[in-house]
Amino acid sequence: MRSVNDNAVVGFNIPAEVGMPLAEVCTPALIVDLDAFEQNVATLRQRLQAAGVRLRAHAKTHKSIDIARYQIDHGGACGICCQKVAEAEVMVAGGIEDVLVSNQVTDPVKIDRLARLARNARILVCVDDADNIDVLAAAASKHAINFECLVEIDCGAGRCGVEPGAAALSLAQKIAASDSLQFAGLQAYQGAAQHIRQFAERRQALEAAIAQTRVSVELLSNAGLECDIVAGAGTGSYYFEAASGIYNEMQCGSYIFMDADYQRVLDESGAGISEFCNSLFIWSSIMSTARAQHAVCDAGLKVISADSGLPVVYGYEDIEYVSISDEHGVLADPKQQLHLNQKLKLIPGHCDPTCNLHDWYVGIRDDRVECLWPVSARGLAF
Amino acid sequence: MRSVNDNAVVGFNIPAEVGMPLAEVCTPALIVDLDAFEQNVATLRQRLQAAGVRLRAHAKTHKSIDIARYQIDHGGACGICCQKVAEAEVMVAGGIEDVLVSNQVTDPVKIDRLARLARNARILVCVDDADNIDVLAAAASKHAINFECLVEIDCGAGRCGVEPGAAALSLAQKIAASDSLQFAGLQAYQGAAQHIRQFAERRQALEAAIAQTRVSVELLSNAGLECDIVAGAGTGSYYFEAASGIYNEMQCGSYIFMDADYQRVLDESGAGISEFCNSLFIWSSIMSTARAQHAVCDAGLKVISADSGLPVVYGYEDIEYVSISDEHGVLADPKQQLHLNQKLKLIPGHCDPTCNLHDWYVGIRDDRVECLWPVSARGLAF
Repeated sequence: MRSVNDNAVVGFNIPAEVGMPLAEVCTPALIVDLDAFEQNVATLRQRLQAAGVRLRAHAKTHKSIDIARYQIDHGGACGICCQKVAEAEVMVAGGIEDVLVSNQVTDPVKIDRLARLARNARILVCVDDADNIDVLAAAASKHAINFECLVEIDCGAGRCGVEPGAAALSLAQKIAASDSLQFAGLQAYQGAAQHIRQFAERRQALEAAIAQTRVSVELLSNAGLECDIVAGAGTGSYYFEAASGIYNEMQCGSYIFMDADYQRVLDESGAGISEFCNSLFIWSSIMSTARAQHAVCDAGLKVISADSGLPVVYGYEDIEYVSISDEHGVLADPKQQLHLNQKLKLIPGHCDPTCNLHDWYVGIRDDRVECLWPVSARGLAF
Repeated sequence: MRSVNDNAVVGFNIPAEVGMPLAEVCTPALIVDLDAFEQNVATLRQRLQAAGVRLRAHAKTHKSIDIARYQIDHGGACGICCQKVAEAEVMVAGGIEDVLVSNQVTDPVKIDRLARLARNARILVCVDDADNIDVLAAAASKHAINFECLVEIDCGAGRCGVEPGAAALSLAQKIAASDSLQFAGLQAYQGAAQHIRQFAERRQALEAAIAQTRVSVELLSNAGLECDIVAGAGTGSYYFEAASGIYNEMQCGSYIFMDADYQRVLDESGAGISEFCNSLFIWSSIMSTARAQHAVCDAGLKVISADSGLPVVYGYEDIEYVSISDEHGVLADPKQQLHLNQKLKLIPGHCDPTCNLHDWYVGIRDDRVECLWPVSARGLAF
């Protein structure tokens, strides 16, 4: 073991250093199995190339300049999606030159920030409100830039977006009539369908979304407005959109990491999705074994988001993470296999909000730290 | 309204600046109603002074040096609790001189860090394992410092801690026999009882915990080991421990802020706890009103922890936060009272993990920003 003086700074606000064995990485830490991560990136690149559609990888999952760069350089991504202007600011500052804010930006102060960003990058943004178009146009004109706008339709998720069809056409025409905006297409993300467990139900939800998107694209085309981009899709559904003949840009995010909840989504054979594998873990230590047949680990709500269920203990089928509190996890360990200070991997229930809790990704290959990536846009929700 | 050029940096990674009207604070932001916060601090100080017990305020709730300082200077706190060594490091660096890590520290690297910290502050730590005592003693001896140790008993929470009685005595004797450790008393926190809704059930759980603690204190006393500190209690239970005649140090944390879940905890009359009021809110904007009778706000899982239920919309009884996703909240607004870019306050379901998502507290008085406090130990879980 390393002498404690050698890694005095490790553990205060950085959990590891490059070259360190995994066993010595300070817990709790967010670790990435680099082989698995790279394999996931390669798998989706191949599938989307075969389907003849683009990937615009969603950076909301990872908030990391390093990972966005990797997705563009090695993963076939034409650019990235962000959900927030502050995320886009970080990504553009990190050299990413093609960013869709796959969300509404309606606050005039944020629109002004977004316009300034468009001086240095291609910026696209979603719209679902007519007045918002006026404010976007004014900011684009003021800063002498061009916003490319996607009209967002609600194709079943019940969140943002206008109804498919006439309402979308009305917004598209208003965008097209503006001198400083460019109508670029449709945003049609069926977010509520990504985690539907049964394949047949998921397909049904996506078929409905695709039909609504198709109607909208055709209505726009008949009015002389062609959609350069028809965007949407996530890790749980992209094979439907990619095969639709209508969608041409996929916005998958979680595929790089996966999580315990995505493992509960079933493929056509009734088995869990197996095309992507878990590459993201919380590295955690056992800190109490005082209670019989239980152990307590040092990873709770402040390092793992529990919104989509509790974490799963990796590699131990008979050990279950049964209760979570702010800084602790209680594990049921009926065979008492765990001992004090033992370290183990936990699979988070939901990858995106879990990553947002951490400042660093610790990249692991062959049980050794190969890289440290900052979670560049962590906490930037503005 | 301020010109956008005046606050160009606001909104990238700082949501506000001092003097700014609340209406201009960038959303989503973590805001503190300073009048309500100060009233909560004063209320608990008065209650514990009247009961003749100490307050060791829990800094896990806020992770803020400024707030810890305020609790000591104005709130009657004798010191603070932390849950993690890294939190303690930040607090000691910020000038806090009396810190209990109300948790087990078992990793030798972390124990070494804790020992170095004890050169500059009074450091207390909890213990529930005999071997851990040896490692603590060796580190204390190596660094020529003294650790004060509390034996943690499990008085009903089912997490860390040995069984009350003989097991606690055995650990206490081992601590007392060490040259570099000092036996300081018992940690007896019934964390599982804090959020029990009904007063009678909560009282029953606390009566059981107090009885187990009393038996342990007497057993230790009969063996010649006096407990200087008998510690525990939280915002949902402290009136039981404070009146017990056995506990003398209260570890309340949430009382400064409160949250939607604590509002569901009932007092003896069957009403919600009213001695403390909500001082913590998420300041959020409406970013989509495209769907009839609904609005979408910009505050989702990355700025509000949903582990203890969804946020509550403050000041609008007929508007409900009905669904949360990573960056969005869907609000049911049957009367369509909300409009695009309207800002509103959300009460988080659970204050501690919500604060840990943010980098700044924006302190508000009379609808104006009075201060910005960093969440000093945000994300420091090591």
